[in-house]
Amino acid sequence: MTDPAFLRTSKIVIIGLGLMGGSLAQAIQPYCQKIYGIDTDPEAIEDAIKSGIFEAVSCEPMPWFSTVDLIVLAAPVKVIVDLIEQIPEWHPGKAMVIDLGSTKESIVAAMEAMPERFDPLGGHPMCGKEISSFKSSDASLFEGHPFILTPLKRTSQKMLQFAEEIIDCIGANTIYLDPVTHDRWVSATSHVPHIIANSLAAVTPSEAASLIGPGFRSSARLAATSTKILLDILQTNRLNILTQITAFEHHLCVIKNLLESEEYSELAETLDQGKRQYHSLLRQ
Amino acid sequence: MTDPAFLRTSKIVIIGLGLMGGSLAQAIQPYCQKIYGIDTDPEAIEDAIKSGIFEAVSCEPMPWFSTVDLIVLAAPVKVIVDLIEQIPEWHPGKAMVIDLGSTKESIVAAMEAMPERFDPLGGHPMCGKEISSFKSSDASLFEGHPFILTPLKRTSQKMLQFAEEIIDCIGANTIYLDPVTHDRWVSATSHVPHIIANSLAAVTPSEAASLIGPGFRSSARLAATSTKILLDILQTNRLNILTQITAFEHHLCVIKNLLESEEYSELAETLDQGKRQYHSLLRQ
Repeated sequence: MTDPAFLRTSKIVIIGLGLMGGSLAQAIQPYCQKIYGIDTDPEAIEDAIKSGIFEAVSCEPMPWFSTVDLIVLAAPVKVIVDLIEQIPEWHPGKAMVIDLGSTKESIVAAMEAMPERFDPLGGHPMCGKEISSFKSSDASLFEGHPFILTPLKRTSQKMLQFAEEIIDCIGANTIYLDPVTHDRWVSATSHVPHIIANSLAAVTPSEAASLIGPGFRSSARLAATSTKILLDILQTNRLNILTQITAFEHHLCVIKNLLESEEYSELAETLDQGKRQYHSLLRQ
Repeated sequence: MTDPAFLRTSKIVIIGLGLMGGSLAQAIQPYCQKIYGIDTDPEAIEDAIKSGIFEAVSCEPMPWFSTVDLIVLAAPVKVIVDLIEQIPEWHPGKAMVIDLGSTKESIVAAMEAMPERFDPLGGHPMCGKEISSFKSSDASLFEGHPFILTPLKRTSQKMLQFAEEIIDCIGANTIYLDPVTHDRWVSATSHVPHIIANSLAAVTPSEAASLIGPGFRSSARLAATSTKILLDILQTNRLNILTQITAFEHHLCVIKNLLESEEYSELAETLDQGKRQYHSLLRQ
């Protein structure tokens, strides 16, 4: 790791102390000058205080808020959009702002509207667990996973360098994308998989539970995702997700029809195509 | 573990030295009197010989075949059905027969037609990996997972006790079911998840590959399953799978329509229902 010069000299506040905010705090705290935390959930506050890694933790911005150099927004997407609107009231001076939200168009649009003294940058670490709480946070959560940055025209070189330093520090891999492309691609690689896992769980009969093996566990794992987090994603990436669900439905229907009509050599070819695409996607 | 009395005094042949057959061989070999292996794939034969755990390995039944007490069928489902028809030619005496196939109705029907000197039992260990080869086999593959037994009326107590001894020995959990119920339930917990994973991979655009995180990896993992193995499953459990795909399609369509019409409170309730069912299934 290169010298974390920005972290060493910066005061940082993380708003939202769930899995993502908590894990980021744990991963960067050893290199930070000071790190503060904000969450509205009393349990998250208590767990964050107990962790001993924060300078202060509170349920709302306190006087120290106006002294921070970097504001990290680690909440559900629509909460992040609301926070972006409130931050100027809480911080009278210059500050950098980055978020960890799962969709980027609405967040970056809100960032565009921030007063000039702010230096905002969209961010999205592509990782997670099904359980979203400070207790389940883990400093190694980001290691080896993509961390997408969606810069605005106004985003400074300094902010980009700071973000890259953080990503380097937590062991993730930086990918630059525009928000539109990000939201389209991530609908395929993340949002629709969540909906599929949820639907799979919903239609699996309770009496079949004893026949659950590692395959089902893996396929349905994302069904445990927080509904609040998922709903914000669906609302802010609605059209891309609808398009991708439709593509999935069509393909599933092709397989179903081939099975129904017992066209097994075509079915084998279609299944092989899915298998090849799986290997090709994972190789890249 | 109780004393593996049957294993200690039995000669066993495993036909099919892929992931399942290879893993079973590795897990039980330390307790067996003698274990033989058969596979038509030269690479599997070579790897099995190298492993040093078999008394003999060949591409077809050799004179020792007629001396074995237990025949384990660890091939794709339709190959198992063919093997069941051939075994009487290869083994002139009494023998117990168990299979490890993923569907049970067609296999148990074939077993019913075996000459009286055979003592057959349907079996299905609910585990696996995406890679099916002797090289990827693993003695701990079965640990903690369900192992379904579907006895025939003609199955002896001795065969059941032997099977339970093997299941105990490999650390799996015995579940008794009839073949019809097995095939219906397993279409929901295993076969449809395979098709869904395959479809998900098929419709994920290559240019989105850089945005693949652990969620997609988990959701699409089963897409790597061997097409030959999967196709045999689909053919021998066709109607259950079609019914279950239809249920899944309907539920996915409900979610899609709620998102399309922006009925977010109903959408949240539907997603919550899937999440609750996921937790309920995994708790059991």
